[in-house]
Order: sequence, then C-alpha cells, then structure tokens
Amino acid sequence: MKLATVRTGPATTTAAVQLRSDAYLPLPVSDVGTLLGDPGWRAKAEEALAAATDSAGVRYATADLAPLLPQATKVICCGLNYGDHIQEMGRELPEYPTLFAKFADTLAGPADELTVEGSTRVDWEAELAVVVGATLTRTNEAEAEAAIAGYTVANDVSMRDWQNRTLQWFQGKAFDGTTPVGPVMVTPDEFDGGGFEVRGYVNNELVQQGHTKTLVFGPARLLSYISQFTTLRPGDLVLTGTPGGVGMGMTPPRFLTDGDVITTEIEGIGRLENRVLIRQPAFH
Amino acid sequence: MKLATVRTGPATTTAAVQLRSDAYLPLPVSDVGTLLGDPGWRAKAEEALAAATDSAGVRYATADLAPLLPQATKVICCGLNYGDHIQEMGRELPEYPTLFAKFADTLAGPADELTVEGSTRVDWEAELAVVVGATLTRTNEAEAEAAIAGYTVANDVSMRDWQNRTLQWFQGKAFDGTTPVGPVMVTPDEFDGGGFEVRGYVNNELVQQGHTKTLVFGPARLLSYISQFTTLRPGDLVLTGTPGGVGMGMTPPRFLTDGDVITTEIEGIGRLENRVLIRQPAFH
Repeated sequence: MKLATVRTGPATTTAAVQLRSDAYLPLPVSDVGTLLGDPGWRAKAEEALAAATDSAGVRYATADLAPLLPQATKVICCGLNYGDHIQEMGRELPEYPTLFAKFADTLAGPADELTVEGSTRVDWEAELAVVVGATLTRTNEAEAEAAIAGYTVANDVSMRDWQNRTLQWFQGKAFDGTTPVGPVMVTPDEFDGGGFEVRGYVNNELVQQGHTKTLVFGPARLLSYISQFTTLRPGDLVLTGTPGGVGMGMTPPRFLTDGDVITTEIEGIGRLENRVLIRQPAFH
Repeated sequence: MKLATVRTGPATTTAAVQLRSDAYLPLPVSDVGTLLGDPGWRAKAEEALAAATDSAGVRYATADLAPLLPQATKVICCGLNYGDHIQEMGRELPEYPTLFAKFADTLAGPADELTVEGSTRVDWEAELAVVVGATLTRTNEAEAEAAIAGYTVANDVSMRDWQNRTLQWFQGKAFDGTTPVGPVMVTPDEFDGGGFEVRGYVNNELVQQGHTKTLVFGPARLLSYISQFTTLRPGDLVLTGTPGGVGMGMTPPRFLTDGDVITTEIEGIGRLENRVLIRQPAFH
C-alpha cells in the first residue's frame, strides 16, 4: 500500500494510492502520521480502496502533495551512515550512529519550492527515510523491524555555513521548509527486503547514488538504537543518512545556486523534485 | 504573573499563582504553552485571579506540577554560553551560539524523579530557560525581547557517555523525562532586567553558581538568532546554557549516582528538586 498527505486548501488529508485510476483516494484523516496512530489503519484504508469508484480520487497530475508527515513530533536523522560518504568526509566507520534532530517545520512537500534565506552554502543529501508505525521504547531490532510502517524519500538539504558555525550541526539542518519528504510512504510488504537504491540529481545531473545495503546502521537498528533513549511513536520519521556525492565533498566544493532543481529518487517509492530559491535576508 | 502546569490525574491544567492564598488557581486550558497561544491570555488570567475566592486554588503543598510546557513543539538549547563554563570545557568564546534540540518528551516536572536507563555518566546543568510568547520568524533582538512570555528554571541533565559517543551531542541530551523544567513561568515585568543568578546543587552541596549577565548570548539575542532559521511559536522553550561547575569539568570528573538529588534554583522564579534514579536496562 502507498499513502500520501495531500493538500486541500489550507488543510490536508491522508490519501491512499488508487493504482487502477492513477489517483489519490482521500481518507477521513488529516495526514499519514495521524492515520498511523489508529492501529486499524491498514484495514480501513484497504476497505476504502475496495469500496471507492474509479472517479473518487484526486488524479496524480493535479494533486498538491504536502510533506508526508506535517505533524511529526520527532524527526531524527542519522549522519555518516554510508561507507562511501563517511570516506568522502574523511572519517572512520562509526561504532555508534551520529544523530541529530529536525522539526516538522523543517519538512517540505515533494514538489515544493525550497526557499533558503541567509545561507550561501546550500547542499543536498538524498536519503531513504523510515516512517514509524508503533510506539517503541527500548525495543530490540526485531520489534523495531516489525514496527516500520513504511519507507519514503527525503532530502536532508543542509546549510553548510550554518552547520559548521559550531560543533553542533543542528542549526544548519533545521531551516524551515527545506527538507522535502514524500511523495508517498510505501509499506514494507511491497519490497523484497533487499534494500533500496538512492539517487540524487542536481539539474538532472546524477550526483549521488548509493544502496542502503551499504548502510552501517540499517533502518531497524536505527529505530532500536533511538528507542533506547527516547520513545518513537506512529508518524515519527527517521532519516537514514546520505550516500557519497554531496557538494561539500567535491573538489572544489559545489553548492546550489538560486533556481537549481534537486531531484531525489528511490525506485519503488518515487521522486522528489524541488526548485531551490536562495534569498539573502535583510540584516537584523 | 506566575503560571504553572498542574497535573490533574492523567491530564493537566494551566494554573495562575494566587499569592494571597499560596495556591495555584486552575484556568480552563490544558497547559501554559496552550494558554500562550491565546493572544488575550494575560487579561483572562488576571480576570480569573481577581474573580476567584481564596479557596478556589490548589495549595502549593499538595499540587503535583507537570513539566511547564508538556506539549512544546520546539525545545532548543544553547551550549557553551557562560564564559566560565566555556573555559572549564577548554574552549574559546564563540562567535555563534552552539544549538541543539530536545523534545517535549525530554521534559520532566519540577519535583519528578528522573529515571535514567543505560548511562553511567549522568551530569547536571542548571539553566535559565525562556518561554516564547509570540510567533517569531526572522525577528530582530528588540522584537524578540518583546516576545518573551516569561522565564523559568531548567536542568539540562546530560548523559555524557552518550553525548560523547559521536560528534553530535543530541543523543546524550534527549533521554525521555530527564530535563526538569518549572516550577513556574514568571513574566518579565516581575524582574528589574538585571538578569538572574542560577544555582545548582547535588545533595544540597552547591556545585554551580553563575549570573546570566555573563551570558555570551542573552535571551533576546538567542531568540532572534534561532528565528533566522526556524519559526518560534508561543509555548516553545529555549534553554540558555549552564554556568561552570558541571561534573564532567571536575578533576576527577564526578557523575550522579542512583538516589542523588539535584536542586536547581533561580531567585524570583523557584526551585527544581529531582531525585535521579539510575537503572541499567536489560541488554537488547
């Protein structure tokens, strides 16, 4: 099953992908995260899909997709998790995952323009993201695996100047509306368990390509690890890190310029396509 | 005016401090953060206090205080912000504030036991915290100053082993239920603007003492800085950093042991008194 959060004017609705009509079928819940809080969500979504007519949905082409989890209370990211990216940043394979937080406000829709104000070193980080489907407190890896509601695509767009102003990356990672996520969440049963190929493009040039089988900390291990110190809940989002090919790792470093388009894709899930607008704010 | 969030069974209520009867007067709103979302909050609270009888409140002695902002969507902390603490950590005065995030789940009530599982290096950090009272997006310092709803006390209890596992402190700073905050929020009009003396004790021994006039980044400057990249909203919380005297800075380093009591106080606001329970979880 594939789920999306679709904008309906100022509000949003959850929608299930209705394959036979290339449409999103609205469900009576505001967003995917809220839907996942209902333990019976899957059966209800399947019933709605079975009962719907072909004309009940919103066609892909006209749908305005919101960030998948506009109300996520925890958005936790792992850095330095692909062997090749760790090497390009000049670091050793880690014993523990490097973690940092974003906010729901940091997220953007899969086709939204990303407006960045006050940074001149805007970089891309294509990532697989994991949607939490149950409440996890100090759970082991098997329980964490079973609690994965689905997978989605994200780009952990990073303001490297702000990220490196201090030892803590947070401020360069939490600019409002700069982390696109979506277009849909796909449940684990749609995959063979062999992992995902993650690709990132800048103006249609392939710049990142990596496979999640090379992750140091896989999705279930990350969820289990995080749950040792903080409770994860349905609708929370964990970004699994980015493969090699970020702009900061290039010689010379390359950053986005106003109007560049970044594309992020994972086969079987979908693609994000976001124009980046770079604005310098008035001095305060 | 002083406001608290009081537990009422599984729920909470905002309460205004009714000085003449040593009591918390319940207001018809779940918590202080939600109250602050109403632009008319102050007048409504003043009216309720004027209209209430002396027996309408919950006496201080019997009130069970919740974390002041149990639903804060942003809890942002500044590290390395007191000159003396920066020196004890062996660092130079910073050009930019070092920022990291916690969650609402990280917060605890002012008299709660703090149960830490899986860390053997639990340390204290007494802090002044600032409660946001308006929506702030790229605001200057004067606007940020005017948007401070009030001040409260916090202890940024830190699991140093987890904090130092990787370059990012987040995981050692975001253990559920380990950052006490309260007991009340006090509005700025109750102070002379000269700042606050922050004190921390372990088992009644004074270990930290610092004055916020020595902050590198004061409350308004922090709010203004943060608002350049992410929107702050009513009920969000910003912790301003800790003065010298943390256990990690001692020779040899000193950490909390099971049953220790940490006390955090700021004159004119109040004190937190929390017993720390240290548990080692079963291996997963």
